[in-house]
Amino acid sequence: MTDTRENTRRTVFFVSDRTGITAETLGHSLLTQFDGIDFRPVTVPFIGSKDKAETVAQRINETAAAEGVRPLVFSTLITDECREVIQAADGMYLDFFDAFIGPLEKELDKSSSHAAGRAHGVFDAETYTRRIDAMNYALANDDGVSTRHYDRAEVILVGVSRSGKTPTCLYLALHYGVYAANYPLTEDDLEDGMLPKSLKTHKDKLFGLTIDPKRLQDIRQERRPDSHYASVRQVNYEVREAEILFRRYGIPFLNTTTSSVEEIATTVIHSAGLQRRFY
Amino acid sequence: MTDTRENTRRTVFFVSDRTGITAETLGHSLLTQFDGIDFRPVTVPFIGSKDKAETVAQRINETAAAEGVRPLVFSTLITDECREVIQAADGMYLDFFDAFIGPLEKELDKSSSHAAGRAHGVFDAETYTRRIDAMNYALANDDGVSTRHYDRAEVILVGVSRSGKTPTCLYLALHYGVYAANYPLTEDDLEDGMLPKSLKTHKDKLFGLTIDPKRLQDIRQERRPDSHYASVRQVNYEVREAEILFRRYGIPFLNTTTSSVEEIATTVIHSAGLQRRFY
Repeated sequence: MTDTRENTRRTVFFVSDRTGITAETLGHSLLTQFDGIDFRPVTVPFIGSKDKAETVAQRINETAAAEGVRPLVFSTLITDECREVIQAADGMYLDFFDAFIGPLEKELDKSSSHAAGRAHGVFDAETYTRRIDAMNYALANDDGVSTRHYDRAEVILVGVSRSGKTPTCLYLALHYGVYAANYPLTEDDLEDGMLPKSLKTHKDKLFGLTIDPKRLQDIRQERRPDSHYASVRQVNYEVREAEILFRRYGIPFLNTTTSSVEEIATTVIHSAGLQRRFY
Repeated sequence: MTDTRENTRRTVFFVSDRTGITAETLGHSLLTQFDGIDFRPVTVPFIGSKDKAETVAQRINETAAAEGVRPLVFSTLITDECREVIQAADGMYLDFFDAFIGPLEKELDKSSSHAAGRAHGVFDAETYTRRIDAMNYALANDDGVSTRHYDRAEVILVGVSRSGKTPTCLYLALHYGVYAANYPLTEDDLEDGMLPKSLKTHKDKLFGLTIDPKRLQDIRQERRPDSHYASVRQVNYEVREAEILFRRYGIPFLNTTTSSVEEIATTVIHSAGLQRRFY
């Protein structure tokens, strides 16, 4: 009897001495290229000792035995001691450092430090402070609550309610340490077709978000069913006027309808020429 | 005359057809293994056409010429058309997909789809909605503002003011779509040494954050200089009582003093046994 499970289901281990975010990010990018396989992800972070690595190796072996097919193992382990243990387990071992560190050492004419815990998301007091500060800034300057601190903003997102401003600002803050404020265009702004003075002063920092009216209606309907706010007419009006206003003032803008938070944030950063810090 | 710049400075391009986050993550993990080199990162996202790729190839060539040493080029480009253009430029080309897709195709006995835009942070209406919903939940249930919706929480972070609760909740929401509330332990809670009733009901969802008093004092001092809130005495008292309370109730807790937001979030997810969704 042939076991066909191997073509449809596969357990995937992401093994890391730190958070596992790098291993997940890279592994996920690769796995999305394979359709029709049900990947079962298991992230095992903080594998910083041989003992812990041995526990993971055992889990890999047990999974292989139970499922009749060896799991995939994406590793960002740095220490040889831990890597050897995982590599010896019954999985398909894919090592992100192995593949590139050798060529890089040659190119840079330098040995790598082989030091653990340097990858993505490792504590550093200065960057931690900047990110948290940027987050506090985003929260304090969310939704037009305050327009007094726009001097400090690196970018000010402008758009109608529920066009994606708040998640983008928080993502920019937490991920990139960018100071991002946001201002919701009010009915008054839209009727006048004019930017409020607080925004005009900072015109160069403005970036507009717009959205497909149908999608916006769905989002608002979920939030306040059958309200004026969620009506087709109101939504169409707001989106149309907001886009007219963006064009009138030459504000760059993005339609967020089919964009992820990452994509919106990336577009904002590049459009606004902001520094893309990496934490 | 020997040009020694190549050992101390190097421009690094991260080239992607989408956000560039995967390329940055990979490259950064590797580059942190090389001390003493000043890497100058340049992220070039949304390279989805041959024309755009040619513009990037030209930038790579110009950089090589100007700096006298070829730049490193980390690529997550999927389409052959774009990759060939970048690969032909005067850089050290490191192709993330090239290194791993072949072995994976063999292991999975399947061709990869070679489809662009599947990697990290690509729009999907369902996951977008979940992340935004989780973010709204975190904002509405931040800082003990409301304790009525704890039924929906997957985890409730507890700790003294400025121990890292809010950034962790927002990160959990935006990155993993986790519903995380947080509750700041008040002086009343600490004096009584008792959890409020709203928390006792959800004891199994609680996770404590603590912090080194000296570091907490610095953070509070920055926020409200020379206040009672920022005094050595008050900070020592709060941290001590909070930890006593965590131990009394058997609440798992983490000292966040030297942890990044990613590390705190990873620990919370694993400690609380939450699903680690990947978006």
